Amino acid sequence: MNVILDLCIIPIGVGVSLSPYVAACEKVLKEAGLKMVLHASGTNIEGEWDKVFAAVKRCHEVVHQMGAPRISTFIHLGTRTDRTQTMDDKIKSVEGKLGGP
Amino acid sequence: MNVILDLCIIPIGVGVSLSPYVAACEKVLKEAGLKMVLHASGTNIEGEWDKVFAAVKRCHEVVHQMGAPRISTFIHLGTRTDRTQTMDDKIKSVEGKLGGP
Amino acid sequence: MNVILDLCIIPIGVGVSLSPYVAACEKVLKEAGLKMVLHASGTNIEGEWDKVFAAVKRCHEVVHQMGAPRISTFIHLGTRTDRTQTMDDKIKSVEGKLGGP
Amino acid sequence: MNVILDLCIIPIGVGVSLSPYVAACEKVLKEAGLKMVLHASGTNIEGEWDKVFAAVKRCHEVVHQMGAPRISTFIHLGTRTDRTQTMDDKIKSVEGKLGGP
Repeated sequence: MNVILDLCIIPIGVGVSLSPYVAACEKVLKEAGLKMVLHASGTNIEGEWDKVFAAVKRCHEVVHQMGAPRISTFIHLGTRTDRTQTMDDKIKSVEGKLGGP
Repeated sequence: MNVILDLCIIPIGVGVSLSPYVAACEKVLKEAGLKMVLHASGTNIEGEWDKVFAAVKRCHEVVHQMGAPRISTFIHLGTRTDRTQTMDDKIKSVEGKLGGP
Repeated sequence: MNVILDLCIIPIGVGVSLSPYVAACEKVLKEAGLKMVLHASGTNIEGEWDKVFAAVKRCHEVVHQMGAPRISTFIHLGTRTDRTQTMDDKIKSVEGKLGGP
Repeated sequence: MNVILDLCIIPIGVGVSLSPYVAACEKVLKEAGLKMVLHASGTNIEGEWDKVFAAVKRCHEVVHQMGAPRISTFIHLGTRTDRTQTMDDKIKSVEGKLGGP
């Protein structure tokens, strides 16, 4: 089962600068060989369910190891059985309906 | 690693009545032996990371098998290494600060 | 337009204990006269759109005033035009499908 | 109060193809003069709190008018008082920590 997942990991108790932790997670996801795109509120990830969630768990482990005593994470994910759809497909599907001049 | 997770599964393409699908997920979670509390916008779940996420995956499989061609799911989860905390602890911690008469 | 909303406000940069901030938000919501139920991962709120979102904004203002330099908030909300539905209705609708022995 | 907000609107009861509704929301946001970036799981929006939430409400109204009897929406938003930060700043802050070759 393939999944398109949006991940937002918030370390708590480490001050206001969270980017070092987000960068560490980006490395975890990259090392897992997952297709991913960073955006302003999270990271879009595409891949096989088990592989994606193993990486999400690894992110939590790494962020705790970096010193965060508490983590709050938000995930939005989608699966579908009617057809194959990539992250690019989803964006193009909307853009195709926005029309031109 | 223990996790407190809030799960909201939205089957897409099956009409407006989603409660049969939510009820099916409740059964999956109960069969998995997880501590859970249904609320108006999702289900709070408490348990060991792998056990919880295996149940979440099973929910997606079951809802697809029930006929939903597409599922959009939202998850909010928390882990902490500084201390053990249950769902009840979290609620009592807030209520204790709301004060009395 | 009525809305059923799930609110989770995470103050960032104030340490690991967030319950004083959640309790302050509970007071804001109560003072706004909104129907609400605290759960382990957030607060369910029911009310008229503008009244609910004015209270959400007030929560952000109050939490910043309490000293949080940064806030990350998650909201899940639902509106429907086909029929009136309360938070209790949503829970009963699922429970009615869980069946008995 | 400025806000960076991630918006994901899911019309329920209109079948599996949601892109026409997402495209309609993109137009609403654009007409509101908000800075926005579409990604695979939602739309990042940046602007003044009241202006942003007026547009979110307008999206719900428009999607209901297009025929969706029910809408489930997920919002992730951030505010901060310690400094001004744009959506681009957030992405660059992470990318700056990912290092080079």
